[in-house]
Order: sequence, then structure tokens, then C-alpha cells
Amino acid sequence: MDDLLQPEGHQFDGRPGCGPRIVSSGDASRPLRQQIFENVRAAGSISRADVAKSLGISPASVTTLTSDLISSGILEEVADKPRADEHTRGRPPVALAVSPRAHVVVGVKLSDREHTAVAIDFAGNRLASATVQSAGVASTEDVLAVTDALVSQVCLSAEISRDALSGIGIGVPGFVDSDGGIVHWSPVLVDRRISFSDMATARFGIPVTIDNDANLVALAELWFGVGRQMANFAVVTIEHGVGMGLVINHKLYRGALGLGMELGHMKVQLDGALCRCGQRGCLEAYVADYALAREANAALNRLDEASLAVPALLESLFDNAKAGNVAAKSIFHRAGRYLALGLANVVNLFDPALIILSGERMRYDYLYAEDMMSELNRMSLVSERGAPPIEVHAWGDLLWAHGAAALALSAVTENLLGEAAS
Amino acid sequence: MDDLLQPEGHQFDGRPGCGPRIVSSGDASRPLRQQIFENVRAAGSISRADVAKSLGISPASVTTLTSDLISSGILEEVADKPRADEHTRGRPPVALAVSPRAHVVVGVKLSDREHTAVAIDFAGNRLASATVQSAGVASTEDVLAVTDALVSQVCLSAEISRDALSGIGIGVPGFVDSDGGIVHWSPVLVDRRISFSDMATARFGIPVTIDNDANLVALAELWFGVGRQMANFAVVTIEHGVGMGLVINHKLYRGALGLGMELGHMKVQLDGALCRCGQRGCLEAYVADYALAREANAALNRLDEASLAVPALLESLFDNAKAGNVAAKSIFHRAGRYLALGLANVVNLFDPALIILSGERMRYDYLYAEDMMSELNRMSLVSERGAPPIEVHAWGDLLWAHGAAALALSAVTENLLGEAAS
Repeated sequence: MDDLLQPEGHQFDGRPGCGPRIVSSGDASRPLRQQIFENVRAAGSISRADVAKSLGISPASVTTLTSDLISSGILEEVADKPRADEHTRGRPPVALAVSPRAHVVVGVKLSDREHTAVAIDFAGNRLASATVQSAGVASTEDVLAVTDALVSQVCLSAEISRDALSGIGIGVPGFVDSDGGIVHWSPVLVDRRISFSDMATARFGIPVTIDNDANLVALAELWFGVGRQMANFAVVTIEHGVGMGLVINHKLYRGALGLGMELGHMKVQLDGALCRCGQRGCLEAYVADYALAREANAALNRLDEASLAVPALLESLFDNAKAGNVAAKSIFHRAGRYLALGLANVVNLFDPALIILSGERMRYDYLYAEDMMSELNRMSLVSERGAPPIEVHAWGDLLWAHGAAALALSAVTENLLGEAAS
Repeated sequence: MDDLLQPEGHQFDGRPGCGPRIVSSGDASRPLRQQIFENVRAAGSISRADVAKSLGISPASVTTLTSDLISSGILEEVADKPRADEHTRGRPPVALAVSPRAHVVVGVKLSDREHTAVAIDFAGNRLASATVQSAGVASTEDVLAVTDALVSQVCLSAEISRDALSGIGIGVPGFVDSDGGIVHWSPVLVDRRISFSDMATARFGIPVTIDNDANLVALAELWFGVGRQMANFAVVTIEHGVGMGLVINHKLYRGALGLGMELGHMKVQLDGALCRCGQRGCLEAYVADYALAREANAALNRLDEASLAVPALLESLFDNAKAGNVAAKSIFHRAGRYLALGLANVVNLFDPALIILSGERMRYDYLYAEDMMSELNRMSLVSERGAPPIEVHAWGDLLWAHGAAALALSAVTENLLGEAAS
């Protein structure tokens, strides 16, 4: 499974310290203590002087604020590597790093095919991962029981006791109110309007936070990916459905009521194709796998046969398209054009500095084909500027689980920084 | 003209102090000094104790910070009205208010029918307004010349010298980069990619800030309207085109590159109706006045006649629809359904706590008819919740000009608060 985290042409090892250390200069929207912590976490290890420089604050402020963070066990001092252009003299240079052993959390991605979990330490290093088959749609009790077993399994692999966990983050597909901990609707749950966080917290005995799975991909990018260099970007996930996460000024934007960003259910055609949400004309109903599967039997001349399972059907469809089957090509072509329309709307409405396309589906050529990109540019306003850069990150479920773990880390960190401040 | 500012069923007198004094508690995203200033401005006049209470900070902090603001002439002390339930004893109660005479600014709304200007004082009171006919599309030089004359006219009406102006804000329809001061494209300008702010600043000799006109309506609501009670809301303007402004956490969100929120150019149909922007399938191409006018001749059985001007044509179309003309009704019905689709997408993507529909067009029944609203609810996700509240504010051009003036006030205030802080 772990190789899912290594998409072609992209480097991602799921832990901080491997990327550029560029972090935007300090802004007033987050408390300084939190900015310092995030700066250190993003950098892996960094000297106090470099923290002061990158946040545009005085070294004295950094020293004061980090001493609190060190005494509360959140940060620790480590030996700094001397730079290539520096001669080491005097006392050895000291850098700050997040204390990896301070806390361990588990992140879980629920989906209708399989559930994936990772255990990570406080510095974001992955300790272990585990996967179980999903029952598809199940009762909340059953999903929590499977999650329970999965958490035990990943703790066993990580060689830690469950008592050592500080929190659990769970990514739930569907309409999720993260702040309220409520799942309004999910394709993996038969129940609706569930106080999922509360039920999970009661069962597991430690704080459980939940979010829409696409938000968690954005969170993973924010914590461990491009978020280290960019303040504003959108993540568009294309899997069984289409999702979106938006980062504004280094923060995940969830909408006024904790919902929103439901790109898959943006209407792109009045009275259009039927969506699995029950409404018509949703983007998802034109680009998701079940949408492609609807027309696949016709393209493959299999109209009288029992349908294959969706993944096999799509594999066959894709092979036929590559081999020149005009009908199969037409299915991918239309889906690509609708995807371009959806992304053009993201550009024209949200104006992100970067769009990241994420999801396993990204390996299908059509989704990032030149046709789609030029279509996108045609439909984006201000043609002199064109569409923002688009990156394809074909991460697998592990990345999503990593985002869920980041959500749990956020909750733990907020508590700690709150305590350290008081 | 001034009665345009008094839509039916809504109270708006264009100055602070007339609404509820509810302002959300302090958040870290804006400097405290600015939050105090905004709190006073929103309240009209307010005691130091009430400022401290509403921002959740100590009275001592308020006293310190406001003494700076008073000595720089931004705030002043005024007599506080004793509350009904209080007995006045001891020294008379003192409240804080924005010094109205500290600064005067002018706001201008450019449009393809007429240009409107208002002069307001530092407390937001309207001193005068003026209107001139627009030439439709003109060169930047010509538009600046007309604006110049309009500014002189409004200063004359306000009985102030032009030298007394601290700044000018201009609302420009089209694709505007506010931070860069650049107009990429506008229906009132023949030129493209113009450094409009710089040219206007050079001509007028005082700082000129510009923005998309829909953003200015949002700014006017933020400063003088519902923004006093709400932190997150969207404004959708329906006039010659369709625009949108988004307020997130008490701030106007303009997108990463200062563009975005181009709701009128959200694609709602692949290869759909031609839009005046040159692309196809934009929302505007289904709901703007020119879109309705395209089909009006057919509905009015006037196919062989020279077309009426758009406003007269739409009046006739509306009268016919009310009189039972099925074709005319069908035009409004479809436009209403597309508007519902557009608003459902705003809900599903941005999740605002409130949507304000703004613009003179709002008086056409179809736009806020029950049909449209129920359609909107059908297309909004999470049916238990339904769409957020929708308010119709049928403000005229004066409101937009007021927003432009608020933009100028923002720039002046930022400079002053920056100086007071240093």
C-alpha cells in the first residue's frame, strides 16, 4: 500500500522537512505562538534566527515564545546542520524541531471500497498504516466497530499501545459539518444527520474530529505539501465523487456553516444527468466513475450482458479508448470537457493561486490531457492571465488518511498551544 | 435620485448609527486598533465600556488604544445618551464616535447608463450626490474626464473644495484587479488592461482606489448594512450583468489574485448561450437583461420590427408576462430557474450564512418569486438545512457609489491607523 504515497513524478514522503523552507511572512490572522509552531513544523528543523527572519519578528520574541513551547514539551532543541557555506566555530548551532514523541495520533479515511488508517507522531512522521475492506454502506455502529478494529491494527503495527493515542481524525465522504461533528449524509452510512464525532469520542475514549474527505486532502497539502510554500490554493479530488478543499491565507476555508466547497454537486446543466445525491445536473454526474460507467456498456457493446463491477468496467473502457474505440473515447472526452468546465468555474469564482488535482483517478490520461487544459483556459476569464497553474498529485488513500491525522494533530496542537498560552 | 436608496421594506439611510449595535466579538485576524475603530464606526457612538465588552478585551486596553485614535483626530468624545433604564448621576456619560469632519471622500459608480457619485464624511454620512449620463463605452481618457467633472459637481453640491478630499473610490464594472489597480476588461471602456488607479491618481492628485462594482456593494453592506451583524455573507448583484461579492470573517474576499467571484461568468451549460464576454454558457447569458432581450422580440411578436432599446423592451416584456403572455412568462420563468441554479451553486460552493440579492432589477417579481426560491431549495444540498436566508435589497446606483466611497475611506483609514500605530 505504501507505494500509493509515491505518485509518478512527485515527491512526497509524508513527513515534514523534505520541502523548501519558504513560509510566508507573519500575518495577523493567527496567534504568533501558533505561527512559530507551524513554521518549525513546516521546516522540520530551523534555527530561532531563521524563524524570526521568516516571520518578520524580533529574535527576542522568538526566544520568549519558544521557551514556553519547549517547556510544555511541544518543541525541542536539536543539533542544526551547519550550512555548506558556513565554517563551524564556537558552540555547535542549535535548531528547533517539533518533539516527535510528544504525541501520537491516528488518521482514518473511510470510503466505500476500503478504510485506511495511519499512525503519525507529533512531527508528522508516519509510524504505520493499515487497511481493511469496507462493507460499502453500513450502519454507524458497524462503521465505528470496523474503525475501532482498524485503529487497534495500526497501533499494533506501530508498536504503540492504544492508550498512547492523543486523538483520532476521521475523513468521511459526503456532507460533513466538521465544527459540529455531524455527518449530514455519507455514501458509506445508511444513517443521516449523525453526531458522528460524539459517538466516536464516546466509543474510543479520546477526542475524535471529523471532516469531509476532500478537506483532509487540502489539510494534508497544507501541512505536508504545497502549503509550505503557498498561502492560497484549491484541491480538487476526483475519485468515486468530486470534492474540493480551499485554503485561504494558510487556513482551510469550510464555509460559514462548516459545509460548502461541494464542487461535485455544483450544477453544470439545468435538469441534467441524475446524480447519486438525488439531484440533477451535478458535475459529479458527468465526471465521477459511476457517471462514466453508465455509458460504458453501450460503448463496449455489452448492452445485453450483466454489468461488470465499476472498476473493471472503467479499466476496460480506458483500454478500449486507448485502442481507438470512438465511443469509449467520446465518453472520456465529454468527461474531460465537463471537468474543464468545473475547474474553469473554480478559477472564475475562487481565483486560487494554484489548483491541485488529487486522487487515484488522475492516472487516467484524459483528466489531465492537453485538450482538457486548453478547454479550461478557453473557459477561464481574463484570457491574458489564463488559468492558474494546475498540478496533478495522484496520491492514494494513505494521503487522505494522513490528512485525517493532520486534523487530529490540529486539535491536539490547539489544546496544547491554548494551555501554553494560559 | 436619493429615493433609490430607500427600497421598499428595507431601511437604509446610508450612515452608521441606525442599526443594531451587534458586532461579533474580537477576532485575531485584524489589529485591535482597527477592530476598535470599526466597532465605533459601526455603532455610531458607543462607550469605552461597551467597546471593551463587545471585543472581549479589558477596558484599560480600550482606553490606551482609543487615546491614540483621539489624539490623531480619528475618534472624538461625544455626549452619550443615558439609557432608558439608567438614572443619570455624577458626571455626564461620554461616548466615542468617529470624527465626521476628519476626512471627506468621494465614491463613484461607473456604468454604461449613467455615472453616480456621492461625497461622504469620515463617519459615513452622505453629504451630497450627483449623476451624469454615461457615454456607454468610451476611452479611458474620456471616462476620466467625465469622472473629473462629476467629482467637481458633487463637491459643489456638498459645498466643499476639491482640495478637501482625502481620497476617491471608483467602482468599475468588469474584471478588476483592485490591489493592482488594473482594469482587465470593462463594458464601459474600449481599452483593456489599463492601470486605471495610477492614471486616475495622476489626474486627480489624490489617492484613487478601484474595485469591481459588485465588491463595492458587498463593502457597502459590510460597512453600513448587514455587515454590522454578520461575519460571513454573499452579495449577488443582478443588473446589466451578474456579479458577486463575498465577505468572509468581516473581510471582503477578492481571491488570491484580486479577481474571482465572477458569478456572472460561471458556466452553467457546456457550449451554451453566447455571453457578452465572448464565452459560452455563462450564467449572465441566461439571466442578464441583454439575455432576456434576445428572446423578447419573439415573445412580443415583433420579429420584423426594429428592436426597442433594452430597458423599454424589458418593461414591455414584463407587462406582457403579467398580462398572461405565455411566451413572455416562459422567458422570465427560465431566467428565474437559471438564477436559482446560480444561487444554489453559491450555496453549495461558498456556504454563506446569508445571501443578499442586490440591484434595481430586483423589482422584477420573477427574481424573487416563490418558484425561484423553491427551485433554489431543491438544488441546494443538505435538504434538512435548505438554502440560507435570502434578502432582497433593491438599492440603486447610490448604494454602489456609497460602497466606492467606503473603499476610499478604507484606504484613508488604513493609512491613518498605520500612522497612529507607528
